[in-house]
Amino acid sequence: MLVIGGMGVGGPGNLTLSLLDAVRSSDQVFAEAYTDPEDMLTIKKVEELTGKKVIVLSRKDLEEGQGDQVLEPAKKSPISLLVFGDPFIFTTHLALKRRAEQMGIEVKVVHGISVLSLAPSCSGLDPYRFGPPVTVVYPDERYGYFPETPYEVIADNLSRDLHTLVLLDVKHEEGRYMGFSEALGILEKLEEKLSKGALRKGRPLILLSALGSPREIVNWVRLGDVVDDKIYNLPKSIIVPASIKFYEQVPPDFQRMLHRNG
Amino acid sequence: MLVIGGMGVGGPGNLTLSLLDAVRSSDQVFAEAYTDPEDMLTIKKVEELTGKKVIVLSRKDLEEGQGDQVLEPAKKSPISLLVFGDPFIFTTHLALKRRAEQMGIEVKVVHGISVLSLAPSCSGLDPYRFGPPVTVVYPDERYGYFPETPYEVIADNLSRDLHTLVLLDVKHEEGRYMGFSEALGILEKLEEKLSKGALRKGRPLILLSALGSPREIVNWVRLGDVVDDKIYNLPKSIIVPASIKFYEQVPPDFQRMLHRNG
Repeated sequence: MLVIGGMGVGGPGNLTLSLLDAVRSSDQVFAEAYTDPEDMLTIKKVEELTGKKVIVLSRKDLEEGQGDQVLEPAKKSPISLLVFGDPFIFTTHLALKRRAEQMGIEVKVVHGISVLSLAPSCSGLDPYRFGPPVTVVYPDERYGYFPETPYEVIADNLSRDLHTLVLLDVKHEEGRYMGFSEALGILEKLEEKLSKGALRKGRPLILLSALGSPREIVNWVRLGDVVDDKIYNLPKSIIVPASIKFYEQVPPDFQRMLHRNG
Repeated sequence: MLVIGGMGVGGPGNLTLSLLDAVRSSDQVFAEAYTDPEDMLTIKKVEELTGKKVIVLSRKDLEEGQGDQVLEPAKKSPISLLVFGDPFIFTTHLALKRRAEQMGIEVKVVHGISVLSLAPSCSGLDPYRFGPPVTVVYPDERYGYFPETPYEVIADNLSRDLHTLVLLDVKHEEGRYMGFSEALGILEKLEEKLSKGALRKGRPLILLSALGSPREIVNWVRLGDVVDDKIYNLPKSIIVPASIKFYEQVPPDFQRMLHRNG
């Protein structure tokens, strides 16, 4: 049996009872380190509470071997693969699940807290007013690779007065975690190029960092402001808010930094 | 201090370490029973693991007293208010949080797993392809109250090839939990009335019930099929899928019922 288990985001406190139970009854436990170098704290907590050794794999390990490292032993005995967030939100392991099922392996899913719900919850914005989310990926200008999707999704959401959750790219293998200034720079370039006015200078934005953890920072800034990435913790994401309704909770001064749960 | 704590959805297994820690260090613990009569199992688990007595309040208790029942003691000592899901997703307690802060009470938030992320995760559909969610509320035809918002949001999402998460109304005080057949009946009536073709008979839909729990059922049906509400557990929600992409995980036969984690 294979358990694909979500450790949630926001650190060890967001581990669930089901996740710990699944680990306790596993013969071998693997974890995928992915979005946040500090995620090791959560993995250590799992080891401490369950007495099991967790073998950390990279996304590359999993993808290159098509998951055989976890699927082969799962044919015979209960194996857990732990991932951050929820296994099928943004870090999608659907292909692995499908492959396991094709191999006749029983798959159990344990869900975890995801940035998809944390972002509206921590921002004070209405979850009914979020359009589809989008990820800003690292462009590669040498090859003319400069995806316009983030801008298009944001512009489309704004045209319908919907907020957008914007995730920032992570290249864990290379140790690259996109910062706010880089992401905002990419969005500003897309505004120059596509000129739909969705992301003009001065436009309010919400920077979200380490959501759900004691290191959480939620901060309203304006596009064009200088942003010091070093004061924010990983993982980082952004909300591009549409109009703000009276019942949405927003700091009266856009420049005020909100520390929550700290 | 007031802790507003999310117990998640899907039963006791989805309780987090942070939630249990917050309860352990509280002088008094309140919980709001809201969406699911079986939620009492989760509240009992909190009591069992923390040794604290949990006082169950209704939403009406909280709203009529503007939360004084929890805010007054929170002026002096640590108090927890536990809610299902995440406190600020769909069961929004933002007004309570704001009132506590205005009274000078420190507020700490503990997040929980929400249907907002469970729905894409459990359906196999791509979370990047969900438009805004919507709730089907109980109409009151005596007073001509028959909200068109659910239909409008679904039609708008479909026009952009986006999936829609549809939540079903709950009137906990009256013991009314909207079933699938009632919700689908309302959507069919709206199609008759507004005739945009968004919800024609035969259209595929996904019924979601007790997501994240061992009683979870995810089932594809077609609009117009007879749906037996009794085989499904609470809480219930629906996805109106847009087109299905090759990488989304969908059962090959739409009529097949999927039991997960059972």
